[in-house]
Amino acid sequence: MTRSDLRVNGERLWRRLMEMAEIGATEKGGVCRLTLTDEDRRGRDLFARWCDEAGLHMEIDRMGNMFARRKGRSNGPAVMMGSHLDSQPTGGKFDGALGVLAALEVIETLNDAGVETDAPIEIVNWTNEEGARFAPAMVSSGVYAGVFDIEDVYAIADKEGKTIGEELERIGYKGERQVGGRDWQACFEVHIEQGPILEDRGLPAGVVAGVQGMRWYDIVVEGDEVHAGPTPMDRRRDPVRALADALSAIYADIPNYGEWARFTVGDLKAEPGSRNTVPGRVTATVDIRHPDDKVVEEIEAAMTRIVAEAGKRHNVEARVETVWASPAVKFDETCVASVRKAAETCGLDTMDMVSGAGHDSVYIARVAPTAMIFVPSKDGISHNEAEYSAPGDCEAGANLLLHAVLDRAGHD
Amino acid sequence: MTRSDLRVNGERLWRRLMEMAEIGATEKGGVCRLTLTDEDRRGRDLFARWCDEAGLHMEIDRMGNMFARRKGRSNGPAVMMGSHLDSQPTGGKFDGALGVLAALEVIETLNDAGVETDAPIEIVNWTNEEGARFAPAMVSSGVYAGVFDIEDVYAIADKEGKTIGEELERIGYKGERQVGGRDWQACFEVHIEQGPILEDRGLPAGVVAGVQGMRWYDIVVEGDEVHAGPTPMDRRRDPVRALADALSAIYADIPNYGEWARFTVGDLKAEPGSRNTVPGRVTATVDIRHPDDKVVEEIEAAMTRIVAEAGKRHNVEARVETVWASPAVKFDETCVASVRKAAETCGLDTMDMVSGAGHDSVYIARVAPTAMIFVPSKDGISHNEAEYSAPGDCEAGANLLLHAVLDRAGHD
Repeated sequence: MTRSDLRVNGERLWRRLMEMAEIGATEKGGVCRLTLTDEDRRGRDLFARWCDEAGLHMEIDRMGNMFARRKGRSNGPAVMMGSHLDSQPTGGKFDGALGVLAALEVIETLNDAGVETDAPIEIVNWTNEEGARFAPAMVSSGVYAGVFDIEDVYAIADKEGKTIGEELERIGYKGERQVGGRDWQACFEVHIEQGPILEDRGLPAGVVAGVQGMRWYDIVVEGDEVHAGPTPMDRRRDPVRALADALSAIYADIPNYGEWARFTVGDLKAEPGSRNTVPGRVTATVDIRHPDDKVVEEIEAAMTRIVAEAGKRHNVEARVETVWASPAVKFDETCVASVRKAAETCGLDTMDMVSGAGHDSVYIARVAPTAMIFVPSKDGISHNEAEYSAPGDCEAGANLLLHAVLDRAGHD
Repeated sequence: MTRSDLRVNGERLWRRLMEMAEIGATEKGGVCRLTLTDEDRRGRDLFARWCDEAGLHMEIDRMGNMFARRKGRSNGPAVMMGSHLDSQPTGGKFDGALGVLAALEVIETLNDAGVETDAPIEIVNWTNEEGARFAPAMVSSGVYAGVFDIEDVYAIADKEGKTIGEELERIGYKGERQVGGRDWQACFEVHIEQGPILEDRGLPAGVVAGVQGMRWYDIVVEGDEVHAGPTPMDRRRDPVRALADALSAIYADIPNYGEWARFTVGDLKAEPGSRNTVPGRVTATVDIRHPDDKVVEEIEAAMTRIVAEAGKRHNVEARVETVWASPAVKFDETCVASVRKAAETCGLDTMDMVSGAGHDSVYIARVAPTAMIFVPSKDGISHNEAEYSAPGDCEAGANLLLHAVLDRAGHD
């Protein structure tokens, strides 16, 4: 029996999404369920109750990560489905919660149909994916993958000085188990896209084959600070002029790197920043992303060249300083293939895509075979109370998850 | 007797400039003689002593403006020479002091040569030209010209809460006389250029025919605040891109308005100003200057058109908001002619120019015929301890002042 006709209960999934969204509900229809707050505790408690009702065995690790396990016929490596229940301060109902509750819906569907799998199946709720209350983001999947040290993370404080360690204890979710080392043969995460691509193309879901490489830079241009009146234009060393020329040229160049290239100037600063003084120094922050690190490097090289040329042309010191780099993630081919196969099984049109944002799966991909599934975000909006994904799309994402898991877990 | 061979004593002028510069001298060779401080009082006292020694009659008005008068054969309208003795916090030896001490040197030269003039001659030291301790600048010439109300000005406080009124009394320079209403047939001010033009052209002095019109604007561009990752470039409404294009195009257009056009972007702001978020809104401050208000308007119109086009091209809201305007000043033709004639008399090469910065003469021109004389600033540097004008150039400026005054005052 291939179970290719098996489908999740979209109505139940939606009902649970809405019930979870009541915890920390905001007046404007969003959610404020910051990690390790009382709201987060209530969200965790509700999830734990649902897992208990579904017959799952719950374990909590020292980072408060929750692992709900459905036994397999073997005790071999499990298939994992994970995301997060914490939210941004003015977040939406779907970011994170969809991935956890779609996973629960997969379990319920298997339970309802009496399907036993060879491999065990686990749902994970990762602590503090958002990083909104305690920076950085994705910190507990990071500890799991060995990126961060747990004692350092315990000491991270919020604005009021409360630490992650204290707050884990306070809400009763500081578990006993070591963080890391679980035996996973495949990991899947359903998440909202947080961008407009799927909606634009009218697709119910996307097969996420990787995460973009990201690099952060500062473009720094230094000239001469002079009075706005007396100095003629051709005698100035005006860093604003060089910066404007450089940015204009870089933006015009970016389409040459294809549809997945991203170039963002998030902040601008002029010093001393006085209206009637030519600034001595201007700075623009830059965020470059592309699924292929080589292309990120090409964009960096072009930007560096354009900035240097603009500096030379306008007789100012212009340079690019690297601030931070996060390499591109290529998800596991076999996991990606399982998601594609699931789309065929379900008769769903999808596209291969890369994630522009970070997710727990970025870190988990370092220690286990991983892939992701995206569902459309209305107007591409996320980290916003107006965030919305249609019931049919949430259901489609859960069905892809179901069949990707079935493909890996083995069953009758 | 035409006295065309009369020349000031450049050595005496330089010696006094250096002696005045000892009051408030900084380690780096500059001057900190902020208005209405003890240093300002000591500078005023020294000036008053020199005036007394030169046989001048001193009057102080209620703003602390100092008027030192040399009698004429008639009691008709006086010829005035004025500038200021206060400095920036890290100012130089020449900004302001040169104008007052060149005026004193003119008087000394007339005294030495035994020249009587028909009209009386007055030297003025204006209180708080700089506006560095108490904003705004040029406040006492402004009260004199009826631009500001004296009671409002008395109430202006520095960072420590001390007011102009209190400090005038404390240093003993709150005079009895009403501010304004003196009878001047012509006014002249020698000042350092504070720009590089005269030095570039190798000229010892400039005939200042007016002051540039100045207008301040904000360029405001509003788009959509989105995450730096998921949203494709062609789906963004990125205000930084439109601003960069607009500024690049405006800078390229400015040379079309001639050598006196000035376009300065002093400050830049991106909101929310987060490295991995496309800003929802960016603002650039703009300062436009030109001697002809019509040209200022032309530049404004071109800027407004370019900004609107960039906004349209990149699908963002882009607009220009006017913040402040100061019309161009055209100095009195007859006073300007007297300076030109003085240059001929002295055999000095000069050029006609406009001031890019404000001076007390801007306000005085509203109530009396006025012109200015500029001398070169080394490297165009001012409001800086490195400010420097060569002895020969200071002397040239004083000689122009001498002969412009003689031209107006009438003499044997």
